[in-house]
Amino acid sequence: MAAGNLLVAQGGGPTAVINCSLVGVIEEAKLFSNKNIGNIIGVLRSIDGLLDEDLIDLRKESQSTLKNICQTPGAALGSCRRKMKEEDYGRILEIFMKYNIRYFFYIGGNGSMHTAHKIDDLAKKNGYDLKVIGIPKTIDNDLEYTDHTPGFGSAARFIASITKEIGLDIKSLPTPISIIETPGRNAGWLAAASSLAKEKDGDAPNLIYVPEKIFSLELFLSDVENVYRKYGRAVVVVCEGLKDEYGQYLGGIKSEASKDGFGRNLPGGAAYFLSEKISEQLKLRARYEKPGLAARASMEYISSIDQHEAYQVGQMAVRFALNGNSGMMMTLLRNKGEKYRCKIGSVALESVAITEKLLPSRFINSKCNYVTEAFLNYCRPLIGNPIRSFQSLSAFKISKNSTVKKQNK
Amino acid sequence: MAAGNLLVAQGGGPTAVINCSLVGVIEEAKLFSNKNIGNIIGVLRSIDGLLDEDLIDLRKESQSTLKNICQTPGAALGSCRRKMKEEDYGRILEIFMKYNIRYFFYIGGNGSMHTAHKIDDLAKKNGYDLKVIGIPKTIDNDLEYTDHTPGFGSAARFIASITKEIGLDIKSLPTPISIIETPGRNAGWLAAASSLAKEKDGDAPNLIYVPEKIFSLELFLSDVENVYRKYGRAVVVVCEGLKDEYGQYLGGIKSEASKDGFGRNLPGGAAYFLSEKISEQLKLRARYEKPGLAARASMEYISSIDQHEAYQVGQMAVRFALNGNSGMMMTLLRNKGEKYRCKIGSVALESVAITEKLLPSRFINSKCNYVTEAFLNYCRPLIGNPIRSFQSLSAFKISKNSTVKKQNK
Repeated sequence: MAAGNLLVAQGGGPTAVINCSLVGVIEEAKLFSNKNIGNIIGVLRSIDGLLDEDLIDLRKESQSTLKNICQTPGAALGSCRRKMKEEDYGRILEIFMKYNIRYFFYIGGNGSMHTAHKIDDLAKKNGYDLKVIGIPKTIDNDLEYTDHTPGFGSAARFIASITKEIGLDIKSLPTPISIIETPGRNAGWLAAASSLAKEKDGDAPNLIYVPEKIFSLELFLSDVENVYRKYGRAVVVVCEGLKDEYGQYLGGIKSEASKDGFGRNLPGGAAYFLSEKISEQLKLRARYEKPGLAARASMEYISSIDQHEAYQVGQMAVRFALNGNSGMMMTLLRNKGEKYRCKIGSVALESVAITEKLLPSRFINSKCNYVTEAFLNYCRPLIGNPIRSFQSLSAFKISKNSTVKKQNK
Repeated sequence: MAAGNLLVAQGGGPTAVINCSLVGVIEEAKLFSNKNIGNIIGVLRSIDGLLDEDLIDLRKESQSTLKNICQTPGAALGSCRRKMKEEDYGRILEIFMKYNIRYFFYIGGNGSMHTAHKIDDLAKKNGYDLKVIGIPKTIDNDLEYTDHTPGFGSAARFIASITKEIGLDIKSLPTPISIIETPGRNAGWLAAASSLAKEKDGDAPNLIYVPEKIFSLELFLSDVENVYRKYGRAVVVVCEGLKDEYGQYLGGIKSEASKDGFGRNLPGGAAYFLSEKISEQLKLRARYEKPGLAARASMEYISSIDQHEAYQVGQMAVRFALNGNSGMMMTLLRNKGEKYRCKIGSVALESVAITEKLLPSRFINSKCNYVTEAFLNYCRPLIGNPIRSFQSLSAFKISKNSTVKKQNK
């Protein structure tokens, strides 16, 4: 295996722990200095920066910088939204040759895994010895072949925590209906994770809607009305990816400029749209919350397990490449047994790139308006420490007819 | 002064520290047991519950319950959205007499202070010895005669923190425009507080819009375009209370059911509306975040100063009533000097009830699109510990033409 330099990049949307994977790569690679790995190079702005040869020397970063980077939101190297062109790959290979890059680690979601796969493929075709390893990352948890994706646990913890906190607020001053919108274009994992907020019947969330099931406004309104009749309030969690009968995002921003790099309309109005419908049709006061990017950027609700696993997949990716592997993405494989543990596995980049892991039907209830116990068991360990528990007053009632104890006068 | 029982209620929307004020009242009142204060009674669901005589014995709550209640979102006693009728006051006085209530503490905003004032007035007219003290609370910081209102500091810390976190996310993967919507119907204090996120030029937030100044869509779009041209991105904070030329909330939900108890339309669509306008008119991709109730319910971003002061106003209200005062609201008065300190003062309930403290012009810049240094100085101490600081890579550039050090082979 050719000795040479290492290159690492971060692709797609950041997560709260994407920098832990970066630091995992750097710290592990340092252990193999002067053996197989020479320079440890970071690419700024992902593929955009790579094509500009916008490279930095990560070996020179101090220990304390690396430590603090793990606690910083955003992608420390920067990312991009590039729509790859065929000619980009050839150019990338030239740059790799110029800088004698022999190890390439790409931290990203399925778009990034597709790019990594193409680079690996081209290197092989050109007989250039390059080890390409994908490191999974996404809050959406939509990568196949891995039990879950680093980044999801922290976003899940954020969503479950604020659902619980908002639920207590709403309980003390009932707004009849409150709708919380979560990220997730096609996959409802984060909306589903809000279920970890519920301790007992009636607690928030009362209803959860995910894009995996066909959305019916009529059934939605009837569900909301039923919950309202029972509890006098309803906290409803909806995924931004809910679509109408024409396949358009509910309340999505329609203008051309807000399409994504792949020509898709942007979601982001489902809760607004549905709160208007509730208000118009059920004649109930409705409000909505859309924490949006805070779900992946907030560092206060982070999952310790998620941080640990994100670091670990970065670290293991380096070992895996040094063992001669290429064209693979690291995965997390959950042990059977009672106690939660994951070991690290791998899967071909090619397979991951073309799939999208949606919530399976066994995680969604038959009415398509909540999750199942099986989902709760799946999700609970991923958020690390349980979300905060809160206190209510014991509330010792004073009888209306009681003679209230009077004071010395 | 008549000895008798104490009654405490929480009115209006909760804050992250409203329960600290409640516990301040309870713990201070306990010190005067068997002297002037007999039972310590809590009202569930505020005035709604009071009229139903839905009362609880707060003396029986354990120390640990009270401690934990201080860390719990929502109003522990429950609140309500009652539109008071004239006959309600007479009924309240009857209930006070029935339970020999001689001390009434109402934790709330200006609506609650109005109610407290009317109760105080009626008791005086009827020659019933009652001490009524208002305890200020609101995230909106819109009460006059107090330097700031308990509840604001914690919500301000939340808004500033997530603006910073979202800003770092956006910086690493530029979405051209991101709009963050904050609470505040008429007063822009919370939108303004986002400014504490900025460390250097170009950092989020780039622009801030508050309802105190007339909003011009044309100027807004031109400001956004200018920031985008300079930095390639813009994080814009807008207050939900922004209004169009007809005085209607931008993007506000218009149906009848979503009017508030006082017949006012509800805000809550400003960021959605403006992101559509940017997308349509500037042809720039725009997204928005609306954390909504999370700003007042999140317990992870709480301000320690705010918690302390909220407790203190509750505590001092009891002492103040025992000193024979009534018809007053406790206030916070900031010392001049360098180091931040507040002492507790008081103001007539009648004065507070009819006013609303808006951001003064000296806190808003001349372009009406950001705050001034004076505002930063005012706001900074209120959030307690500074918001987290984050790390960026030192990013030692690798020269494009450099011969990259190759590894032993």
